[in-house]
Amino acid sequence: MAHIDLGLDEQQFPGISGLMRYRPETAGPLNALAEVLLRGPHPLTAGERELIAAYVSGLNECTFCCSSHSAFAAAQLDTGMTLVGQVRADPDTAPISAKLRALLRIAAAVQQDGRKVTADLVAAARGEGATDLEIHDTVLIAAAFCMYNRYVDGLGTFAPTEPAAYEESARRIVSEGYRA
Amino acid sequence: MAHIDLGLDEQQFPGISGLMRYRPETAGPLNALAEVLLRGPHPLTAGERELIAAYVSGLNECTFCCSSHSAFAAAQLDTGMTLVGQVRADPDTAPISAKLRALLRIAAAVQQDGRKVTADLVAAARGEGATDLEIHDTVLIAAAFCMYNRYVDGLGTFAPTEPAAYEESARRIVSEGYRA
Repeated sequence: MAHIDLGLDEQQFPGISGLMRYRPETAGPLNALAEVLLRGPHPLTAGERELIAAYVSGLNECTFCCSSHSAFAAAQLDTGMTLVGQVRADPDTAPISAKLRALLRIAAAVQQDGRKVTADLVAAARGEGATDLEIHDTVLIAAAFCMYNRYVDGLGTFAPTEPAAYEESARRIVSEGYRA
Repeated sequence: MAHIDLGLDEQQFPGISGLMRYRPETAGPLNALAEVLLRGPHPLTAGERELIAAYVSGLNECTFCCSSHSAFAAAQLDTGMTLVGQVRADPDTAPISAKLRALLRIAAAVQQDGRKVTADLVAAARGEGATDLEIHDTVLIAAAFCMYNRYVDGLGTFAPTEPAAYEESARRIVSEGYRA
């Protein structure tokens, strides 16, 4: 049970979904940010951006967010959940582009502390073809999930254990987006 | 110099202000979130909420955000920068209400990891009169500054050293808000 009374059935509205119903004033900007970062027009595909979100949420060990964004990534990548598992286990050996690998290294640094992002990490990503926009958005996606993860876990929300719950959310996010 | 080319004078637009001009699509939700959390109608004063933001930014050692929100807090508290310094040095001995002290303990837990927020910390805040909304918003303010801090430092932005720069921003934020 969450740390505060959300006034709803937490099984039906787990994780961040219950928090967003509890406080619609903050849900608006939180959803708008996710929509721009993860689904707006971009050189990185939605699947690649969800992969960064899932990877960071895994590093923060946030069950609800990691399960959610793993499902959202899998639903938008040809290689599905297999690739998500490989990236979460070890980005260095996962079959992804050198550019995405370099961006994931930046994301991992952000997850620890913004100051861990070195000029060398940025130069390596640029050397693999990453643009300034891709570097900017990778940093902000990683930073944003350090917020979402702490929000969801800091209020002790419920996280379903069955994959079907996350797959159903994935169908909704892919077809309707975060603002729906 | 920032890790990416922001296309502007970083001395004139330091920290997050340059990032927001570089990427207005994400600046919108980021400013909207700050406006609701730090300046919207609330049982905690704007000064108290800025104090939570300054405290968490200090724990994350983010010079730009900590200097900014310390100045914003000082400008909206009768006790000014003296109290901000006392809270940043040690919330346990700072002359603040028992409720605010308990909320700062929750914020410090969130800064480390959402899962560090225990039922005991929440019960202690409730015992000092904190409402569910105050507990919710404290968690989200602390989580949000774990994002803003990583965003600002992860892109290596410039932080002015002279207090006057932050005091000028404080005047603007107090009179016009984050959305201006």
